[in-house]
Amino acid sequence: MAAPVTTARYARWDGVGTPFRLVTTALGAPGPGEVLVAVDLATVCGSDLHTTRGHRSSPVPGVLGHEQVGRVVATAPGLRHVDGAPVRTGDRIVFSVAASCGECRRCRRGIPQKCADLHKYGHAPLDEARPLTGGFATHCLLAPGTATVVVPPAVPDEVAAPASCATATVAAVLGAAGSPGPGTRVLVTGAGMLGVTAAAMASRAGAEVVVADPHADRRARARRFGAADTVGAPPERAFDVALELSGAPAAVRACLDALDVGGTAVLAGSVSPGPAVGLDPERLVRGLHTVVGVHNYAPRHLAAAVAFLVAEHTRFPFAELTGGPWSLDALDDAFAAAGLPGAAPRQAVRP
Amino acid sequence: MAAPVTTARYARWDGVGTPFRLVTTALGAPGPGEVLVAVDLATVCGSDLHTTRGHRSSPVPGVLGHEQVGRVVATAPGLRHVDGAPVRTGDRIVFSVAASCGECRRCRRGIPQKCADLHKYGHAPLDEARPLTGGFATHCLLAPGTATVVVPPAVPDEVAAPASCATATVAAVLGAAGSPGPGTRVLVTGAGMLGVTAAAMASRAGAEVVVADPHADRRARARRFGAADTVGAPPERAFDVALELSGAPAAVRACLDALDVGGTAVLAGSVSPGPAVGLDPERLVRGLHTVVGVHNYAPRHLAAAVAFLVAEHTRFPFAELTGGPWSLDALDDAFAAAGLPGAAPRQAVRP
Repeated sequence: MAAPVTTARYARWDGVGTPFRLVTTALGAPGPGEVLVAVDLATVCGSDLHTTRGHRSSPVPGVLGHEQVGRVVATAPGLRHVDGAPVRTGDRIVFSVAASCGECRRCRRGIPQKCADLHKYGHAPLDEARPLTGGFATHCLLAPGTATVVVPPAVPDEVAAPASCATATVAAVLGAAGSPGPGTRVLVTGAGMLGVTAAAMASRAGAEVVVADPHADRRARARRFGAADTVGAPPERAFDVALELSGAPAAVRACLDALDVGGTAVLAGSVSPGPAVGLDPERLVRGLHTVVGVHNYAPRHLAAAVAFLVAEHTRFPFAELTGGPWSLDALDDAFAAAGLPGAAPRQAVRP
Repeated sequence: MAAPVTTARYARWDGVGTPFRLVTTALGAPGPGEVLVAVDLATVCGSDLHTTRGHRSSPVPGVLGHEQVGRVVATAPGLRHVDGAPVRTGDRIVFSVAASCGECRRCRRGIPQKCADLHKYGHAPLDEARPLTGGFATHCLLAPGTATVVVPPAVPDEVAAPASCATATVAAVLGAAGSPGPGTRVLVTGAGMLGVTAAAMASRAGAEVVVADPHADRRARARRFGAADTVGAPPERAFDVALELSGAPAAVRACLDALDVGGTAVLAGSVSPGPAVGLDPERLVRGLHTVVGVHNYAPRHLAAAVAFLVAEHTRFPFAELTGGPWSLDALDDAFAAAGLPGAAPRQAVRP
């Protein structure tokens, strides 16, 4: 039997233009409500790239990364996964992008993803006494109020890791859209990680999915992920549901304009400042339109994401979505690869 | 026993600037799926005023009026009210603003108020062979697919008639807002018929209601209808729910700006062309905001409106909302009174 691991390494980020630096720290036992996780694989999310490019403000120094899969190394007693099962050493899990207090007004109103005391993984100021707050590390120490979901072994690491952010966000998006099913005409703008995941989930639920993306290679990928049709420009058709997952202002406009009477547009891509989009109140009113914003997700969406991947991941070429894997020492290279034109939506890092 | 009535009178409208003309027509038996109703009292809705002023296009000639209460004089066999009870001669009822086919895509998707073959009362071109399509008449012939709800005798005519439009629309608005209850902070813009009805319904459901209206007398009325507070200008507070019931572009702006994280704005007042309102996609996304348009309503909302009036109408001074009554011969006077500054939100007409 191997001796227990007593140290961890994390990739310290010191701001735009600086390389990652690996730092070794001592591993302690989890405190009350905490879970210590050994990270098996983390993926570089688009928002990590936005951060390192300076397009998204994030505390400096910090530990980035919030999409990962790992194993429980040690846990405080009495904790439970989202499905109610007890958290046990050895459980292979994904966990939520943030920890919520469970007691503030927002938590009580059912939006723990907007908790007044939210702690976001990969997005906290570095505390050298407790630095394990991001996915680009050998270990992550989960704070009380983090949602955890067990991932069965059949789901590969590369497929499971994005569940923590991309897949769960898409589950929240589809929930906000009323869970489109058979006969529902769905437009998805953007064939990135979220867009193709949305195409896969909605098409498996029976919806007729059209994906709009200006790039032919991304459109081709969308078809491999269940899109019945793809278009380069906003289509002149009416949709029951429009999912804006690109963040492009023109795509926001296209989604609002694409709605048929009674239609719902869900916006999730617009996480950076951008121009206002003109909303025609009379059209919204007479059209019974709904426009919903989605950012992050609730614990049930993480469970739904894992359930979808367990049931359906073999139907779609998820492997092509992730490049790498890179070692933690090569994290700069992973970020460089993630930023190349035409890159896979994700690069994997094995700490 | 009186001899059966064999004729009806309706108020024919010939366009902007012309007086109403009373026309006598023969009464026949209802055809398949039809119900013949004797109108006891109709109210002049704001949209009737918009029509006669030329601010809303409507077929000419036509029979206006779509808020009324009456009694079933004759009915085709096999018809049922919204609650499933059979339609019987003598039933005192209100009915939906429109008849729906029940078979088109929109009806099947749960939005019969946007039926592809919608027939709106008070809004149809005059067919002299079948002219009884509006409330400003002694009788109205309900088309197949009209929702009907029985009104108990305790609810006065003046209170019951607006259920067909204003009260049911407010029920739809509150439904779209997630049925705000205890602890929910609700902003209502506009203290007209819809605004005070919304204040009454939401406050009785336990919500904390603030009503915004530029007119002091209307604000005072809102307080009599359950508003915990009123303001003249958009308040600098955050709300969980904002209900736009005035149609003023500035109020649309105020409702979008008033939303707290997770908040929902329901727009229902904007039924005329107006300027676009700038929507900030990032704020919507990060704020988990929802913006919903409501126009007309589904049958369940008419049932909810009547249930509310039955249970709660004595708690609020509904009598002050309706002027008149006027006779059908004095319909021009009723419209003139409805258009006066400071007029009650409704004028009643007794045919």
